[in-house]
Amino acid sequence: MPPENLFDESADDTRSAIMEATYHALVEHGYAGLSIQRIADEFDKSKSLLYHHYDGKDELLVDFLEFVLGDLHQQAMVPRDAPADEQLRSFFGGTDPAEPERSDEFVGVFVELRAQAVQCDDYQRLITRTDEYIREYLAAIIEDGIEEGSFREVDPDRTATFLVSVLDAVLLRRTTTDDPELAWDVLAELDDYLETRLYRDD
Amino acid sequence: MPPENLFDESADDTRSAIMEATYHALVEHGYAGLSIQRIADEFDKSKSLLYHHYDGKDELLVDFLEFVLGDLHQQAMVPRDAPADEQLRSFFGGTDPAEPERSDEFVGVFVELRAQAVQCDDYQRLITRTDEYIREYLAAIIEDGIEEGSFREVDPDRTATFLVSVLDAVLLRRTTTDDPELAWDVLAELDDYLETRLYRDD
Repeated sequence: MPPENLFDESADDTRSAIMEATYHALVEHGYAGLSIQRIADEFDKSKSLLYHHYDGKDELLVDFLEFVLGDLHQQAMVPRDAPADEQLRSFFGGTDPAEPERSDEFVGVFVELRAQAVQCDDYQRLITRTDEYIREYLAAIIEDGIEEGSFREVDPDRTATFLVSVLDAVLLRRTTTDDPELAWDVLAELDDYLETRLYRDD
Repeated sequence: MPPENLFDESADDTRSAIMEATYHALVEHGYAGLSIQRIADEFDKSKSLLYHHYDGKDELLVDFLEFVLGDLHQQAMVPRDAPADEQLRSFFGGTDPAEPERSDEFVGVFVELRAQAVQCDDYQRLITRTDEYIREYLAAIIEDGIEEGSFREVDPDRTATFLVSVLDAVLLRRTTTDDPELAWDVLAELDDYLETRLYRDD
């Protein structure tokens, strides 16, 4: 199931409706099995409308990645008005594997699209931009924490890069192995890392 | 470029020759662009020989993944006769991004295949087995270190799972973003994590 509200406007917005059809086709057939016809099968308007908006599958999928990443930006961001350690905890709370069935389908689509960045520069550009965006967001929280005196004086950028990377690994583990619950272990160890390296004792 | 010796026996071994042709076709066209014809184009024997050994592309690729993972097992393993901290350092030394051009082509192929595990149970089974293998290997090193007295009394399994996950993230970052050198930051932070959480001071 995709995150709530992702396709909310689909009723009256053609792009959202195309994005929703693409999402369902990706879940059903995977990236490698995707075709315009299979997207059209999930789409309640005409196939020619797809070609009216996009030159082909590749252009449509780059737009889909852009759409999904735009939503991830929003999902990942928590209000900046709480103490820094609470902000960090709610950020990683969002990756709580307690409801894997609900979110892993969506994460799986994202993992498959991300792997396309190995071959495709357009994907790589979008993945890099999103990575940068989340790293900057986390670095800002870490800077706040240092200023507040609740965090140790770490390198905010390097720590943020590490945190995003561990998050990437959690998503990859949850969707590509038979032991997705080991993602819990990774998050628990990350928490201990934060306690030891980042949070001040008092 | 693939790791040295990966296709050494290709001269007189049909399976290795098919694996080498598959590797080059994957680097050239990516997973999504792969076909038996494109593998045959890289193969100096007849296309019918491919069909003699494999029912089709999917069966061939599962065997390719098995071949690559078997090699990764060997590559990743360092001799177990050194002190535990040296063993751990040489394990992660193997992911040194100093020569990215040489190894990233190979890592990219692996990242693309891993993402197929989102959709395909055969891939998921192989990825899980490799993950398990490397986690057990690292947990054994950590147990040695605790016994030697050079490591703190951490949970070996949980720590090993965390380490493998950070390694996954490094490989993903190197091949799917425009900032592969940030992988250095992740490894540097991992080193500080090990100093703080695992290695004893003295």
